[in-house]
Amino acid sequence: MKISRSLQGLNGIVPPLVTPLTLDMQLDVSGFEKLINHVIDGGVHGIFVLGTTGELSRLSYDLRKSVIEHACRIANKRVPVLVGVTDTSIDETIRLEKIAHECGAEAVVVAPPFYYHVEQDELLSYFEELASAMDLPIYLYNMPARTKIHISIDTVLKASEIEGVIGLKDSSGDFFYLQELLFKLKGKKDFKVFVGPEEIMAQCVLTGCDGGVNGGANIFPELFVELYEAAAAGDFQLVKLLQDQVTHLSTALYKVGGKQANFIKILKEALHQKGICGPQMAKPYIPMHESERQEVKRVLKSLALSATEIKHNL
Amino acid sequence: MKISRSLQGLNGIVPPLVTPLTLDMQLDVSGFEKLINHVIDGGVHGIFVLGTTGELSRLSYDLRKSVIEHACRIANKRVPVLVGVTDTSIDETIRLEKIAHECGAEAVVVAPPFYYHVEQDELLSYFEELASAMDLPIYLYNMPARTKIHISIDTVLKASEIEGVIGLKDSSGDFFYLQELLFKLKGKKDFKVFVGPEEIMAQCVLTGCDGGVNGGANIFPELFVELYEAAAAGDFQLVKLLQDQVTHLSTALYKVGGKQANFIKILKEALHQKGICGPQMAKPYIPMHESERQEVKRVLKSLALSATEIKHNL
Amino acid sequence: MKISRSLQGLNGIVPPLVTPLTLDMQLDVSGFEKLINHVIDGGVHGIFVLGTTGELSRLSYDLRKSVIEHACRIANKRVPVLVGVTDTSIDETIRLEKIAHECGAEAVVVAPPFYYHVEQDELLSYFEELASAMDLPIYLYNMPARTKIHISIDTVLKASEIEGVIGLKDSSGDFFYLQELLFKLKGKKDFKVFVGPEEIMAQCVLTGCDGGVNGGANIFPELFVELYEAAAAGDFQLVKLLQDQVTHLSTALYKVGGKQANFIKILKEALHQKGICGPQMAKPYIPMHESERQEVKRVLKSLALSATEIKHNL
Amino acid sequence: MKISRSLQGLNGIVPPLVTPLTLDMQLDVSGFEKLINHVIDGGVHGIFVLGTTGELSRLSYDLRKSVIEHACRIANKRVPVLVGVTDTSIDETIRLEKIAHECGAEAVVVAPPFYYHVEQDELLSYFEELASAMDLPIYLYNMPARTKIHISIDTVLKASEIEGVIGLKDSSGDFFYLQELLFKLKGKKDFKVFVGPEEIMAQCVLTGCDGGVNGGANIFPELFVELYEAAAAGDFQLVKLLQDQVTHLSTALYKVGGKQANFIKILKEALHQKGICGPQMAKPYIPMHESERQEVKRVLKSLALSATEIKHNL
Repeated sequence: MKISRSLQGLNGIVPPLVTPLTLDMQLDVSGFEKLINHVIDGGVHGIFVLGTTGELSRLSYDLRKSVIEHACRIANKRVPVLVGVTDTSIDETIRLEKIAHECGAEAVVVAPPFYYHVEQDELLSYFEELASAMDLPIYLYNMPARTKIHISIDTVLKASEIEGVIGLKDSSGDFFYLQELLFKLKGKKDFKVFVGPEEIMAQCVLTGCDGGVNGGANIFPELFVELYEAAAAGDFQLVKLLQDQVTHLSTALYKVGGKQANFIKILKEALHQKGICGPQMAKPYIPMHESERQEVKRVLKSLALSATEIKHNL
Repeated sequence: MKISRSLQGLNGIVPPLVTPLTLDMQLDVSGFEKLINHVIDGGVHGIFVLGTTGELSRLSYDLRKSVIEHACRIANKRVPVLVGVTDTSIDETIRLEKIAHECGAEAVVVAPPFYYHVEQDELLSYFEELASAMDLPIYLYNMPARTKIHISIDTVLKASEIEGVIGLKDSSGDFFYLQELLFKLKGKKDFKVFVGPEEIMAQCVLTGCDGGVNGGANIFPELFVELYEAAAAGDFQLVKLLQDQVTHLSTALYKVGGKQANFIKILKEALHQKGICGPQMAKPYIPMHESERQEVKRVLKSLALSATEIKHNL
Repeated sequence: MKISRSLQGLNGIVPPLVTPLTLDMQLDVSGFEKLINHVIDGGVHGIFVLGTTGELSRLSYDLRKSVIEHACRIANKRVPVLVGVTDTSIDETIRLEKIAHECGAEAVVVAPPFYYHVEQDELLSYFEELASAMDLPIYLYNMPARTKIHISIDTVLKASEIEGVIGLKDSSGDFFYLQELLFKLKGKKDFKVFVGPEEIMAQCVLTGCDGGVNGGANIFPELFVELYEAAAAGDFQLVKLLQDQVTHLSTALYKVGGKQANFIKILKEALHQKGICGPQMAKPYIPMHESERQEVKRVLKSLALSATEIKHNL
Repeated sequence: MKISRSLQGLNGIVPPLVTPLTLDMQLDVSGFEKLINHVIDGGVHGIFVLGTTGELSRLSYDLRKSVIEHACRIANKRVPVLVGVTDTSIDETIRLEKIAHECGAEAVVVAPPFYYHVEQDELLSYFEELASAMDLPIYLYNMPARTKIHISIDTVLKASEIEGVIGLKDSSGDFFYLQELLFKLKGKKDFKVFVGPEEIMAQCVLTGCDGGVNGGANIFPELFVELYEAAAAGDFQLVKLLQDQVTHLSTALYKVGGKQANFIKILKEALHQKGICGPQMAKPYIPMHESERQEVKRVLKSLALSATEIKHNL
């Protein structure tokens, strides 16, 4: 396994892309092109398809294959493509990696197999098995809110020794976990840690993380890229200024409708309102109420979303 | 959709079969034959493949297809075959049902799509969509410990009105839930309720449940059949006698090793010791320690497991 | 420590009494008299004051002392009085027991000290310390929903060996726990197990419990006494008939208002409507909405509540 | 209610003091003097007695009274004294505040009444009732891990309008909560927010918090004072340097013994080893194993604990 050149220095913002869908639940290829071009034009450092935000497990295998092929074609090596291959079955995970490899993706991202409880020693053996079966480098994906399995710090440290395992995306939102992990990873510069929840991305980068895999960057790539760069440069004043926009996104936009699982629905509605793709989600899916769509519109208007705009508004 | 004759009066014990595997992770056809013959000879009223005990989500689609085909062939209409088609993707769930239908299975069993949070109204729309797309009758499958979604009583009541939805398998272990549900289902004789956890099967049947989908019946089908029949007949003294054996199974056999996820591992080891199939599980899988295997052996010996044996032992 | 004669054979229904309060948060002595007479007239086998239903921890120590004195005076040895002495501080728990002893109570009931996490070995040492410091016999009180500490089966078994520890009230609602505990306590006839949640009281008595500490018996003592006696006698048909009334209470009355913590508020409102005591609760307390009071009235009317009435209604 | 002069500008480190105890469970007055002098000499900005670290609920009322009296006497107005008056009974909470007021404490700190579930509207009415009954200014105390009740952001915002409520100590460890709260409190400079978990104190101060109530400051007051001051001054390089020591404390010292509830035990053992007070805790208490004490000793030695020392060590 060779780590591709474009990946070696991967830091920064890697948005977990939504999967644009047509009304009959096929990939909306034109929307996908607009979306990928939108985030690359916004300066992102990579893209991640088939993550939680990409509705990974809801999509049929044919659809997932289509997502991988088109993502690699559209990105066209402008930025690295990371592919989520998380699945409940190890065989299907490996099959997806083969497709990703053939299509020219740069890496895969894999969460613990969900549904069953998994012990930490089983988890480590799982990552070892994957690493020996796969051609592409692997990012671990800690997503306990969905998989119900927390990849322990000890397991991450052990897995970081496996050839082919090159980093972690942590979406636990557990700052204590990240802090301890970064503390214990000191000296391992080649093992990269990305953080999922955009609310704490800047603090995590200040604490030592290598970047963010932040859903909001689907809509506002520049905001997150600028915030990342401010944090990486230690420009604390600019971090404060931009962080307020992110907190505003989190406390206003993502709370529209008030339900737990609305994040992807809201992202897709916002992208729809920006003319990028349709709002459809994979099933089971109940469309947003008109009043909620109006609320999304209202909040989007109230956001000033790039450092340039913000400075302009000051 | 027609409900098959053999299914109409389905009550009793429907073991959720383990999936016997070869060392290279194929279906152990010979072991599967022994297992199915063993439980049918033991008097079970139906069999259920690709449930949680059958390692549903861990198996590749090719393997799941193979399980369905062989189960139907081996059962050969001696008892109804229920097929678990639970999946994260609605398309794959429907595809599995098509296979089950073609192979001659009598019904499918489906839990909520897991990984993402699902609201109750989304869940109901999901069951409606499935019912309209499927040929076989459907049992809902409430398994909150694994899916993290509780099918609410209200949703079950509404779903029980959908044509094609004919029952519920509840594995919540929540006696209050079952009690309230049975209370509110009164009068709906055609909607069947089966209970998963074997520890409370008899009490649930006494309270109004129609049967049990109990893992222990893989090993000891007679015990569960006799216990079910005693409960259904209101023979409280015999229930007490047999229940002690089930409690003993639960408090001794299933606690070997002391870990949360060992239930299937222990079932397979016990079946291995009885000469029915190998102990292999799907990955990630770490084999049982030799000391634990000895403990399984010791506990199995200590069990007197049919009413006949028990009465003999008195 | 001597076990009082009246306690030795204690089985049956021991209602956890609400604490009637005046508008200025003193004990409503007249209401308390009516309540205690009401339940004793209804046939209960003992009374339990200062349990969870009695708002134990919300009451000042002066008020708790008053509750103990008046309960013993009013009961006047007609039935045993059990006193909840659960507290966060071991010193205050022992102080409350001294008061209970002086007033003539028959036993105390004690849950783990809450707020801090407690390990099982600490818990056992706590019960040992209490038993050596107290004059009255002790019932352990397992109430994990409130204390956040589950008294493990192993700890109960060990504590059952301590002189002075004579039983357990289990309010976990965990049927598996109770079943395993009763299985492992076999032969220890002197250690009594009472069950808290009224919904499962009859099933638990059928399984081997000695009685119920059921909140609903504040309002309908006869119903619970008759149900207990039917279960103890193995009269399964009568159990079924009466159980439906209990399930109706649980699914209709206790869900008025739809909030988690309304159980005591609803009990007190129902007692108020029956002319027994006022609806006031200890602070923080927000009175029931008028619409909810009407709903309580409506549900109360719909209940037929003794076997006599039920048979009459048939 | 007047806010005392010393309190108006209270920012910085306010250690939640442990309560030194003699072998017969009385206040170890001499140890308490050493402890208070130790932290004041270390530069702390206030002290907080009878918090969670002070074993609040485990202590008898007589002992709590003694703690308050001695703390005020020893502090002798060198720094403000904050007193925890959290209790399950509102009457006892108010009684404790009267004692604190008479002894000359500057403020009280109060968590939701625990044991029972409390709705947010009940919680707000509780804080209103307390504010009208108390003479001293009040800090709210959010401690969901122990009280099982999260003071919602909305409730904090409403409570911040109550006269007499002057701040919040948040021990949720939920960075998202704190971030949103600080965002919504903007402009309310008089409402102070302190953070409990020392691991995230510096990040929280960088984000806008006013200080830390950090248990580790019992042992190493200078470290926390210097870290706070570095964060308040935006000296990001010094924050990084000192934060590593705090993370080391958290990942090494506080994990000795591996149990959940060992934090106070470890603090007291470390203070014992530093010659400040004995290791005794309130009951139920099982002393530390000798091997754990040696481990505490080993970790303490490995820590370089002030910026001066750290810079010296570089």
